[in-house]
Amino acid sequence: MSRETEKITMLHGAGGTVMHDLVKNYVVKYFGGIGNAEVPLEAMDDAAVVGDVVLKSDSHAVKPIFFPGGDIGRIAISGTVNDISCLGAQPYALACGLVLEEGLPISDLERILVSMRQTCIEADVGIVTGDTKVVERGSLGGCIMNVSGIGRRTPALDSNLQVVRKYRSLPTRWLLDSNLVAGDKIILLGTIADHGLAVLSAQQGLTFGSHILSDVKPLNRMIQRFLGEVGGTVAIKDPTRGGVADALNEWAEKSRVGILIQEDRVPIRQDVQTACEMLGLDPLEVGNEGKVLIGVVPEMAEQALAFLKQTPEGKDAQIIGEATAQFKGVAMQTLVGGKRIIARPVGDPVPRIC
Amino acid sequence: MSRETEKITMLHGAGGTVMHDLVKNYVVKYFGGIGNAEVPLEAMDDAAVVGDVVLKSDSHAVKPIFFPGGDIGRIAISGTVNDISCLGAQPYALACGLVLEEGLPISDLERILVSMRQTCIEADVGIVTGDTKVVERGSLGGCIMNVSGIGRRTPALDSNLQVVRKYRSLPTRWLLDSNLVAGDKIILLGTIADHGLAVLSAQQGLTFGSHILSDVKPLNRMIQRFLGEVGGTVAIKDPTRGGVADALNEWAEKSRVGILIQEDRVPIRQDVQTACEMLGLDPLEVGNEGKVLIGVVPEMAEQALAFLKQTPEGKDAQIIGEATAQFKGVAMQTLVGGKRIIARPVGDPVPRIC
Repeated sequence: MSRETEKITMLHGAGGTVMHDLVKNYVVKYFGGIGNAEVPLEAMDDAAVVGDVVLKSDSHAVKPIFFPGGDIGRIAISGTVNDISCLGAQPYALACGLVLEEGLPISDLERILVSMRQTCIEADVGIVTGDTKVVERGSLGGCIMNVSGIGRRTPALDSNLQVVRKYRSLPTRWLLDSNLVAGDKIILLGTIADHGLAVLSAQQGLTFGSHILSDVKPLNRMIQRFLGEVGGTVAIKDPTRGGVADALNEWAEKSRVGILIQEDRVPIRQDVQTACEMLGLDPLEVGNEGKVLIGVVPEMAEQALAFLKQTPEGKDAQIIGEATAQFKGVAMQTLVGGKRIIARPVGDPVPRIC
Repeated sequence: MSRETEKITMLHGAGGTVMHDLVKNYVVKYFGGIGNAEVPLEAMDDAAVVGDVVLKSDSHAVKPIFFPGGDIGRIAISGTVNDISCLGAQPYALACGLVLEEGLPISDLERILVSMRQTCIEADVGIVTGDTKVVERGSLGGCIMNVSGIGRRTPALDSNLQVVRKYRSLPTRWLLDSNLVAGDKIILLGTIADHGLAVLSAQQGLTFGSHILSDVKPLNRMIQRFLGEVGGTVAIKDPTRGGVADALNEWAEKSRVGILIQEDRVPIRQDVQTACEMLGLDPLEVGNEGKVLIGVVPEMAEQALAFLKQTPEGKDAQIIGEATAQFKGVAMQTLVGGKRIIARPVGDPVPRIC
């Protein structure tokens, strides 16, 4: 049987030769050799041995598994890497649990594995262990997966917190959702809703005039440089499912502050804005990848923004607002004047977004 | 809507209030408060902060999700805990990625979460972070999940290896599949094929005369006591998918030894044996939970067996064979005389076993 027409069967996950061949010829081939572990993927043992600290697990069920600008594998690696980065830590090892649907073309699997490898190289982090299961043909769209990972604190994080403590106390050594206080500035790394619209277009077969691409990418290296070279950051959050509206409400609630943002400062591409209007979507509620919200002490906000704007990931960054003691929850100063309450969305308007 | 009739919908995984309520009222309710973390599940932050070392990830897609003696949640916790234990490490934090099918009754979810909490308490390890996704109604049988975890080395492991090194050198500080040498004795912790038959009976609606229950359970506490109090163990492996046949072949291949087992020493319940014969299954190829194979230096084998037999988990333990330089691969001295080659199975005869 030629490799292009071979498909995943139940045997591929059944613990015998067929699965072992699949793991050896595909998973190890593409995942192996990145990163450093005492008992690495190549050992194909029961678990991997790594060093230290922050643990994160994220399952991914984006549908379709390929969409403009990315695929499920790129999201899965980036998602876990970025979540670990949001605490200020550096991810240093990942584990991947693949769940493949019977009937998934091996060539599709290979394409995803190649993409994951590439994303790992970008993030400078390796997949050190994993697991593969196969389920009957159903509604998953080919595959879903989980990527977990561990991260460690870095000198850059310590240096960043030293700067914070020049201006105020902070009762933690990590960047947490609960760290904001009134006056903290909120920076958005770039344009919103690109990812959600890209996935929606693939789901619905829509064309939006211009081509909207997902911006999914690992941000850990940029975040570590940012923390080490600027300082003063108290919180970072990636506004994925539920978008910026959900993420800001999470911050406001956990930090017990209000958050006021300025509509005219929220970066959004014109074609994304237009598409959202046509579809009746609030771009603040649409999920993002490759973007983070950053909470920074006011004294360091301009310096932080200037640094970010010089990075490829942050060229469209803006200070979109600040934490306040004037009210609770999240509000937006609108373009037409007046304030609009930004409630926590009931759900992301785009299903199966990541 | 009453709690009994409420079902998981797409909104439960969409990052908004519905999902947040689900996480708060179910996931945190049942998972929280076990274990110890600097940023724990209750913080509902992006990741958890834990201490150190062995990383494992395992996805679980057993179907049906409830079966005699267990459920998918108990398997998921036990699986990751036991895999970490197989290296000789003690698991100390888990992360859980739930993938729920639209239409899963909340009461079923709750039952699984309760079971996971109970299993965590048995293992003395907490779930410190996680993630929930929802997918359209399909063929998953209600839910699948991933549990990843980290473990650390312990004084018990070090003490165990000191005993090994009284008798021979060992080029690693972990228990690995590649650690066996000719002469090492192989202990099987208990009866085989119970789990696979229990799942098969639930899948097929079979009744086997007597009730066969899955033996899925966390073994980490027993293994740590065993390592600390006996010593001399070089490898531990849980013969899940593909059964004892697959696990022994994995050992033989990675350790570059032959393995000879004695048919009359392999523990198996009479009703399991009978059911396997009726169904045409080789019990050596049927998956297990709650059982491990233990490779031990010959000088300590009897002492190891005596210790295990006094534990609830190991009361049926037997020395089933030994590693040998006489041949490669795995062979069995049969009851009727002569040797049978035990090949690596093409696949577990029971699909969706874990």
